[in-house]
Amino acid sequence: MSHAQRLAAIRHAMADQNLQAFIVPHDDEHLGEYIPPYAERLAWLTGFTGSAGACVVLAEQAALFVDGRYTVQVRQQAPASLFNYHHLISEPYLDWLLSQLRNGDSVGFDAHLHSQQWYENAEPKLAEQGISLVPVSENLIDAQWHDRPQPGTNPALLLSQDYSGQHSEAKRSRIAQDLAAANIDAQLFTQAEPINWLLNIRGRDIDCLPVVLSFALLHQDGSVQLFADPAKFADLDLSAHSGSDVTLHPVAELTAALTALGNKSARVQLDPTTANAWSALTLSEAGAELVYADDPCMLPKACKNPVEVNGSRAAHLRDGAAICRFLAWLDARVSQANPELEDEGSLADKLEQFRAANDEFVEPSFSTISALGPNAAMCHYRHDNGTPRRLGQDAIYLVDSGGQYLDGTTDITRTVAVGTPNAEMKKLFTLVLRGHMDLASARFPAGTCGQQLDVLARQPLWQEGYNFDHGTGHGVGHYLSVHEGPQRISPKGSQTALTTGMIVSNEPGYYREDAFGIRCENLQVVQPANIGGDIPMFALETLTFVPFDRRLVDTAWLEPKHIDWLNQYHAQVWAKISPQLSGTDLIWLEQATRAL
Amino acid sequence: MSHAQRLAAIRHAMADQNLQAFIVPHDDEHLGEYIPPYAERLAWLTGFTGSAGACVVLAEQAALFVDGRYTVQVRQQAPASLFNYHHLISEPYLDWLLSQLRNGDSVGFDAHLHSQQWYENAEPKLAEQGISLVPVSENLIDAQWHDRPQPGTNPALLLSQDYSGQHSEAKRSRIAQDLAAANIDAQLFTQAEPINWLLNIRGRDIDCLPVVLSFALLHQDGSVQLFADPAKFADLDLSAHSGSDVTLHPVAELTAALTALGNKSARVQLDPTTANAWSALTLSEAGAELVYADDPCMLPKACKNPVEVNGSRAAHLRDGAAICRFLAWLDARVSQANPELEDEGSLADKLEQFRAANDEFVEPSFSTISALGPNAAMCHYRHDNGTPRRLGQDAIYLVDSGGQYLDGTTDITRTVAVGTPNAEMKKLFTLVLRGHMDLASARFPAGTCGQQLDVLARQPLWQEGYNFDHGTGHGVGHYLSVHEGPQRISPKGSQTALTTGMIVSNEPGYYREDAFGIRCENLQVVQPANIGGDIPMFALETLTFVPFDRRLVDTAWLEPKHIDWLNQYHAQVWAKISPQLSGTDLIWLEQATRAL
Repeated sequence: MSHAQRLAAIRHAMADQNLQAFIVPHDDEHLGEYIPPYAERLAWLTGFTGSAGACVVLAEQAALFVDGRYTVQVRQQAPASLFNYHHLISEPYLDWLLSQLRNGDSVGFDAHLHSQQWYENAEPKLAEQGISLVPVSENLIDAQWHDRPQPGTNPALLLSQDYSGQHSEAKRSRIAQDLAAANIDAQLFTQAEPINWLLNIRGRDIDCLPVVLSFALLHQDGSVQLFADPAKFADLDLSAHSGSDVTLHPVAELTAALTALGNKSARVQLDPTTANAWSALTLSEAGAELVYADDPCMLPKACKNPVEVNGSRAAHLRDGAAICRFLAWLDARVSQANPELEDEGSLADKLEQFRAANDEFVEPSFSTISALGPNAAMCHYRHDNGTPRRLGQDAIYLVDSGGQYLDGTTDITRTVAVGTPNAEMKKLFTLVLRGHMDLASARFPAGTCGQQLDVLARQPLWQEGYNFDHGTGHGVGHYLSVHEGPQRISPKGSQTALTTGMIVSNEPGYYREDAFGIRCENLQVVQPANIGGDIPMFALETLTFVPFDRRLVDTAWLEPKHIDWLNQYHAQVWAKISPQLSGTDLIWLEQATRAL
Repeated sequence: MSHAQRLAAIRHAMADQNLQAFIVPHDDEHLGEYIPPYAERLAWLTGFTGSAGACVVLAEQAALFVDGRYTVQVRQQAPASLFNYHHLISEPYLDWLLSQLRNGDSVGFDAHLHSQQWYENAEPKLAEQGISLVPVSENLIDAQWHDRPQPGTNPALLLSQDYSGQHSEAKRSRIAQDLAAANIDAQLFTQAEPINWLLNIRGRDIDCLPVVLSFALLHQDGSVQLFADPAKFADLDLSAHSGSDVTLHPVAELTAALTALGNKSARVQLDPTTANAWSALTLSEAGAELVYADDPCMLPKACKNPVEVNGSRAAHLRDGAAICRFLAWLDARVSQANPELEDEGSLADKLEQFRAANDEFVEPSFSTISALGPNAAMCHYRHDNGTPRRLGQDAIYLVDSGGQYLDGTTDITRTVAVGTPNAEMKKLFTLVLRGHMDLASARFPAGTCGQQLDVLARQPLWQEGYNFDHGTGHGVGHYLSVHEGPQRISPKGSQTALTTGMIVSNEPGYYREDAFGIRCENLQVVQPANIGGDIPMFALETLTFVPFDRRLVDTAWLEPKHIDWLNQYHAQVWAKISPQLSGTDLIWLEQATRAL
C-alpha cells in the first residue's frame, strides 16, 4: 500500500464518519518518550520516522508538523506531493487547523494518543469557532494498517531488591498515605516508567527503555491493579515479588476498572500532562471526580536510594571500561591503514560491541550519536539517516551514547581527536570542558534549583562570546529512561530543587555549523557535601569515569584549579578503570590519564 | 493625646459607622517605598515608626503586624497593653481578621492606602465568610489627627535634558503609541517615580526620594494631566519644560478627571500592583473599563539612556571621593585618642558631611546603615533606634550609604577594619569579596535574567558552607529611588532580562549573629561587552570607585584572577579618585589602592 493509498483510505474513513480533519500524532497511548513499532502510526501514514511530530489530514490536503531537528529528514521521507511541511513549534497544528476549517466542521482524534491537558486546551479552542473535537471509537489508521506489527511479547523482569533497594510495598504505602490524606480514592498511571518503578518490574517492550508497557491504578489502601499483557508475567510470581495486593489484569479490563471507579463517584488523581485524555474522559463520563496533581512517583523515582546510587556507581565503572576500550581501539584504528573503511555507523557498532561484552549490559539507553567533523554540529545527528561520514578526513569526533544495565543507566559524551585539531577547536573544547568542571565543582544549599546552577557551565563560553542552544543537564533514571524529570539544569524553568540521590547529566557543548561540534558529558549524583560552615551543602558526585581527551586541551584557557580538577579526575579514572583493563588498553589508559 | 486615647477615638468612630474592624496600613496613597510625615498614620496610632507594617483595630483589641526586621523595635515603640504583636508575613492580617470576625461584620479600610490587587484579593476572601469590606469616605485617623503635619511645600525641580537625556515628549509619545495600539484611552499613574521620570521633574516631598508626590493620566494622544500641588510649580513653566500638552491640576481635581473618563466608558490601563484601589474603584464605578498591565514607565525608566549613564558615572566619581575622605578620616580617627567618643551616629553624620560638601549633592538616597561589630549582623540595622554603639571595641565596621545627586543616585557598602580582625573575619570578607568580583566579571547574552547570575556571587560562600539571606542586587534609579525594578539579581523570581543601561547593585554579604557583618557593594551598569565570538554579550561596568579594605583580604582564599581584578580595580580607583583628593586623603588613597 503506497502512502497515497494509505492517505486515501484514511480520507475515505473520515468521510464515512463525517470528519473534516483527522489528527495523527507520533505519540502512543502511554505518552512516553519512546514508542513501540505497533504505535508508529505517523510513520505508516507519512513515511516520516522522526521521534516527534504530527500529521493533520484534511479532505484535500495533509499537513505534516515536525521540529527543527527533522526539517531535512521529513523531506527525504514524506512525499511532498502528499504532505505540506510545517514547523511543529512555531506553527502549532491547532492554529493551522483553525485557519483551515469552518464553523460546523468536525475534527477526529484518538483520545488515547493525546494528554488530558492537550484535550482541555484544544477542545474549547476549537469550540470557540464552532468546530467540534470528536474522539474516534477506533483509530482510523489501525483499521487500515493490515501488516501492523504485534505488540512485543518479551517477558517482564522482576527487579530484585538488591537492585531496587526498596520493596514495592514501601513505595506504594508511602504514596497511598498521601492519597488518603488528600481523600483521593485512587491514582491513575498511564505512563510506563512510574509503574515499573513502583512495582520494581522492568521489561523489553521498547528499545532503549526497559519497561513493561502498562497502565495501573494505585488505590488508597496501597493495592495496585496492573493492566498489562499477562503473557509477559507467565513464568513470574508478580504478587510474591511486588506484594499480594498487586493484581494483574489484561489491558482490556482497564475500561471496566475506570468505569467501576466512576460508578462509585470515586475521587481519582491523575497528572493531566502525562495521562491520556481517553482515560480521563472514561473516568469522568462514568462519574468519577478528577483531581489533577503531579505524578506522585516522579519525585521519589528521581531521588535514588543508596542501593540505586551504588548500583549506578558500579554500572558506570563497567561502562567506563567499555568506553575506554573503544577509545583505545579508535586511537589505534585512526593510525592504521585505510581509516576511511570505518564510518560513523561502524564506529557506533564497535562501541556497542564493547558494551555488549559486559554481562549486566542489557541494551543501549538511546540511539548512539556518532558524528564526525561537521555532522557533530547537529545536536541530534543520526548517522543512520543518510550516508554515514567516513573516518580519516576530520579533526574531531563526537560520540554520545549510553547503556542500560540491571543496576543503572549510563549516558556519556566524549569529543576526541581523530585528526589534527586546530587552535580554535582546542580553545572551544577547553572552554566547554571548563564549564563542565565549574558545574561539577559546584556546592549549593537545600532549595537550589537547576536553573540557578546552569550559568556555571556557560560562563566560560559567555566570557568569549559563545553559547550552546540546549539545556546543560537532564535527569537520568535507574535502569529506566535516560531522560527523566522533574529535575534538570537549564537556563529557565528548571525549578525543582536538587536533592540527595538525584542523577543529572552535565553536558555543555559548542556547535559550529558545517565545521565541528563539541560536547563534554558526565553523569553526576547529588550528595551531601559534608563540609564545615554554617549550613549543610550539596555537591555533585561524578559517576562517569572516562578520560577527557588531553590532546584537545589548551591550558592557556584554564585556571590552576581546572588543571587540578582534570588531573584529579584522571587519577580517579586510572584508579577505578585500570583494574578492568589490560594490554594495549591499559597502556592507552595510562597515557590518556597522565597529569597535565 | 496618648495612644490609648487615639485608639479609643478610632474605636468611637468605628462604632459610629458600624465597623467591627478598621485597617491602618503603613502605606500612603502613592503606595511607594517611602511616605511623607503627614501619611505616618500607623506611627500616630501605635507609636511604631518602622517602614512597613499594619494595624487592625477591633472593638476589644488591636493587632499590630510587623516583619522580622522590627520584632524588637515594635515592642519598644507600641505599648503592649494596647497592641498584640503579629508577624506581617507568616501571619497575614487578613487571615487573622477572618479568625476574629463573624458573619455580617464590616471591615473599614481607606481605599487610597491599598493596591487594587490587594482589594481584589481581600474583598472576595472576606465576602466568602459574610464579612463586607467597606471603603471609608474619610480616613478615621485623619479626622482625629489634629496636629497632623502639612504636606511638604518644597518647590518642584524641572530636570534639564542635560540630566534626563530625553525630552518628556519623546518618552510620552513612545508610551502613548503603545496605548493607541492596544486601544487604551488613558494610562493612570498613582506612584510618584514613573510620573517624575515621564515629565522630567523632581521634588523634595519625601526624604531620600527626590519626587513630587503626584498622580497623572497619560492619554492616548500623549497629553498628560498632572495632579499635584500647583504651589510647587508656582515659579516654573512646566508646559514649556515637559510639553505644551502637559497640564497641571490640583489633586482635588483627580476625582472629576477619573469620573470623566468613566462617563465616556474609556478603556483605562493601570498596574493593579501599584495603583491604589480608590482610583480603580472610582474609575470603574463611573463606567470606565479597567485594563491591567505592568507600569509602562517601569522598563524604559530602568534602561538608562547614555546621558543618564554618563551622569551616574560622574555622580559616582564625586561620591567616591567623599567616601574616600570619610574612610581616610576614619582610619585616622581610630588611631587617635578616645575613639570611643565616636559612635555609629557620629560616624554616619561625618560621612554625610563629606557628601554634603559636594555642590550637586541633594540628600542621602536612604538612611545610612552605620554598624559596628555585632550590630552589622543585622541587615537592616538602624543606629537611631536605641543607643548607637561606640567606636574602639570592635574589629570591623559596616557602612551602607548613598547619595542623591542631580545627575545620579549612588549606593555603596564598605566593610572596613576599625580594630584587629581575626582570620575568620578575613576569610569571610574575602569570600564575600570574591563573590562580588565573580559577579562583576560576568558576561552574558541577551535574555539573561538576574536569577541566572545570582549564583556567581554566592558560589564562593557556598563552597565553604556559608550563604547570605538577601538578594544579591537591586535596580537603582537615576536621581530617583535607590530601589527600582523591574530587574534585580536574586535566586528566584528576577525574570526580567538584563539589558543596556540597567543599573544594578552587586552586594553579597555575610552575617554572623551577635558577632559581625560583612557586605561588599558597588553599583554596576549593564553595557555591551563588545568582544568577539559568535554572539553579542553584555557585561557589568562598575560605577562605584572606592577601595575595598586590603587589610581584610586573605589572599589564600583568592585565585590569581581575583587578585588581578582587585589590583586593576584599585588602579582605576586611584586614577579616577586621586585627582579629587589632596594631603592626607591622597596619602591614604595611595596606600589603600596599592597592588596586593
